[in-house]
Amino acid sequence: MLSRAGNPPVRLALWNGEEICLCSGPPVATIRIRDKATLPGLLFDPETYFGDAYADGRIQVEGDLRSLLESLYVARQNARWPGWYARLAERWREWRQANTPRGSRKNIHHHYDIGTDFYKLWLDRELVYTCAYFPSPSDSLEEAQVAKMHYVCRKVHLRPGETVVEAGCGWGALALHMARHYGVSVKAFNISHDQVLHARQRAKEEGLEGRVEFIEDDYRNISGRFDVFVSVGMLEHVGIGHYEELGGVIDRCLHSSGRGFIHSIGRNAPTSLNGWIRKRIFPGAQPPTLGQMMEILEPRGFSVLDVENLRLHYARTLEHWLERFEKSLREVSAMFDERFVRAWRLYLAGSATAFRTGSLQLFQVVFARASVNRLPWTRAYLYENTRDEGTQAKWIHAMP
Amino acid sequence: MLSRAGNPPVRLALWNGEEICLCSGPPVATIRIRDKATLPGLLFDPETYFGDAYADGRIQVEGDLRSLLESLYVARQNARWPGWYARLAERWREWRQANTPRGSRKNIHHHYDIGTDFYKLWLDRELVYTCAYFPSPSDSLEEAQVAKMHYVCRKVHLRPGETVVEAGCGWGALALHMARHYGVSVKAFNISHDQVLHARQRAKEEGLEGRVEFIEDDYRNISGRFDVFVSVGMLEHVGIGHYEELGGVIDRCLHSSGRGFIHSIGRNAPTSLNGWIRKRIFPGAQPPTLGQMMEILEPRGFSVLDVENLRLHYARTLEHWLERFEKSLREVSAMFDERFVRAWRLYLAGSATAFRTGSLQLFQVVFARASVNRLPWTRAYLYENTRDEGTQAKWIHAMP
Repeated sequence: MLSRAGNPPVRLALWNGEEICLCSGPPVATIRIRDKATLPGLLFDPETYFGDAYADGRIQVEGDLRSLLESLYVARQNARWPGWYARLAERWREWRQANTPRGSRKNIHHHYDIGTDFYKLWLDRELVYTCAYFPSPSDSLEEAQVAKMHYVCRKVHLRPGETVVEAGCGWGALALHMARHYGVSVKAFNISHDQVLHARQRAKEEGLEGRVEFIEDDYRNISGRFDVFVSVGMLEHVGIGHYEELGGVIDRCLHSSGRGFIHSIGRNAPTSLNGWIRKRIFPGAQPPTLGQMMEILEPRGFSVLDVENLRLHYARTLEHWLERFEKSLREVSAMFDERFVRAWRLYLAGSATAFRTGSLQLFQVVFARASVNRLPWTRAYLYENTRDEGTQAKWIHAMP
Repeated sequence: MLSRAGNPPVRLALWNGEEICLCSGPPVATIRIRDKATLPGLLFDPETYFGDAYADGRIQVEGDLRSLLESLYVARQNARWPGWYARLAERWREWRQANTPRGSRKNIHHHYDIGTDFYKLWLDRELVYTCAYFPSPSDSLEEAQVAKMHYVCRKVHLRPGETVVEAGCGWGALALHMARHYGVSVKAFNISHDQVLHARQRAKEEGLEGRVEFIEDDYRNISGRFDVFVSVGMLEHVGIGHYEELGGVIDRCLHSSGRGFIHSIGRNAPTSLNGWIRKRIFPGAQPPTLGQMMEILEPRGFSVLDVENLRLHYARTLEHWLERFEKSLREVSAMFDERFVRAWRLYLAGSATAFRTGSLQLFQVVFARASVNRLPWTRAYLYENTRDEGTQAKWIHAMP
C-alpha cells in the first residue's frame, strides 16, 4: 500500500501491533489503523477511504496532520493511483452528482446549508468563504478578506453607477461591498437558501436593499443586461460539461462594454478532485485547468485581460480557517458529532496542503468583450494604496 | 462585395468612373480599383487579394489608411468571410508553410533575413521587434522597449547567478539585457542567420561574450538544464501542432525550481491569421488562443502564475514603428521597390488596427513547475520603481 502511494515518509501501525515503514528517513507521522476491515477500502480507493476511515476514527494520526498530508501529496507524484476501482467510483459519483439545475441544488445544499452559525465560528466577520488576498503575508484574515473584495472590484474596474450581476454570492459579502464602496448596483444569484436569507437580512440592516438584490435562483436563469459579471468560488460547482452554457449566460447578460471576472479553484492538468472531498464535502465539485476555463470564454470571443494564480494565498486562508476551527472545537462539538469534526479537520488541513504543494491552484480571470478599449493602461493601479476605498476613475486611460 | 464584407463605411471607386457606397454615413476613405482584372480575386479571397492588389498599386486608398482598415476590421464582425476559396487557399498555405525544422528555417528566413539595416531604420535602438511595454502611454518607443525588457526579467524574477535559455532571441537585445542588468548567464537560440550574427557582434562589443551565448539552431534542439525558460515573439512561428513538442523541450530543459515565460501574439477564439499576412509577410505564422497555449503547459503539469494581455501596448508599438517607417521612406525606397514599401505599410498599419480593434491579442504568460513555492507573494513588486535596475531579491517572499 505504501509503495502504491509512492513511498511517503510515514509509519503504518496496524491493529495487531505490527509497524511498517518503507521510508529511508524518519517518518513525519504515524497512521494507526484500528482494524483489519479498514484495509480493503484503503487498497482499492485509498483517496476516498482514508478520509472516511479518518473521520470514523478507524484511522488515527499520531503527529502533525498537515505534515502527514503534505508528505502524502508530495509522494503521490510517484504513486500508481488511482486504480480501476477508484476510477469506477469516480464515474459513478460524476453521474450521481451531475450539476443539472436540480442536481446543483442538492449538491450546494449539502455543503452550504448546514447552518450559518457553524461558519460564523471560523470564517471572517464578513463570512467570505473563498480565497483571501493578503497584501502582506502577516495580514489578518479579516484584513485579507476585505483586501480581496477591493482587489476584485479594482480588477473589473467598477465605475459608479454601473450594474453588476454576481453568480454564486455566498452570504452576500462581495455584493454588499461593491454597492457600499463603489457606487454600483448588484443583482446576486445563489441557490443556497440559507445563504440568500442571511444576505437579504444583511442588505436590510445596512440599508443597501435598494442597490443589492439577492435572488435565490440558478446562474442559468440570470436575466437582464449588466456592465459587469462576477463570480467568486462558484465555477468549482458548475461542472466542466456546463462551461459552454455558462459562457452563453455571460454573453447574454453583458452589455457591449461588458467586463467580467471569474475566481475559481483550478488545476495544472486535468484531474478529478480528491475522491473523498467529492464524496463527503463538495459533491459535484470539479476544479478546471485554465485551458478548460477557456471553454467558457473562447466560444463567445471574450478577451482574457488578466489571470493571476493565488494558490499560496489560499493555503494561508485555509490555515487561518483551520486555526479558528480548532479554537472553536467546543462550540463545533456542541453542534455536530465527532465524525463531522474529524471530517472537517481533514478537509481543511487537506485543502491547505493541496494548495501549498501545488496540487490545487486558485485562478482569478479578468475578461472583457473583444472590442472594449476603455481599460486600465497597465496593472500598476491595482497596487496603489491597496487599502484605499472609492472609485478608480483616475486609473482608467482611454487608448491614447 | 461590400455587403459580403459587412458593409464597411467605405466608398469603392471603379476603373470606369463608377462609385459605390452602401454605407449610411459618410465614408471614411475611398478604395480605388484600377482595373477590372482585380475584381475576381477580391471576390474569392478578399483578405489575401486586397493586400496583393494594394502592394501592386492596383488598389489605391484615398484617405487615412489606418481609419480605412479599422472600419474594415469592425465591419468584418458582420461579414460572410471567408468563402470556400479562401479556406482552400489557407489549407494549401498551411501545408506549404509547415513548421518542420526545415520549413521553419525557410519561413523565418523570409521575414527576418532581409537586412538588419532595414530594421534599424524604424525599430528602436536595441532592435526589439516585439510588443513594447509603456508604463505611461506617452513614453517613447526607446523607453518602452527597455521597460519591457525589465518587465520580463521581473516577471520571471531573475536572481543573480541563474541560468536562462531563450527560444527565439531576435537580434539579442533581451539576452544581453538580462546578463547586463540581472547577473544571469543566457543561452539564446535563433534560426535567423542574420540576427544571430548581429547578436554575437553585440555581445562581443559589450564584453558579454562570457555570459551570453547565441546559438544558430532550432528550439527543438535546445539541450542542457536551466533555471528559467523565456521566449518572446517566437511562439507565433511554432505552429499549434507543435505545442506539445515545445512543452516537452521546456520540461526537458528546466530544473526542478524552474520558471518560464512566453510572450506571443494571440487570439480570443481560434481563427487563422489574415491570409495576406501569412502569404506575404509571416509565412507559417499562427497566433494561438490562451486555451491553445495551455497545450504547451498542461500536458507537462506546469503551473500558470500570471497572464497579461497587452494588446493596446502592441497597437501603440506598431503606431511608433509605422511613424518611423514613413519618416524613413527615402532610405527604405533606396533598399526596396515600391511594391515592398506599400506591402510593409499595409502590414504595419493593418497590424496596429488588428490590435486596436481587438482582433489580435498579446499574451504574456508566466509559469513554473508545480511545486515551486519560492515565488513573489503578490505582483505589487512589478510596479515598484519600474525603471529601476538590479536584482529583486527583496520582493521574493518564501511562503510564511
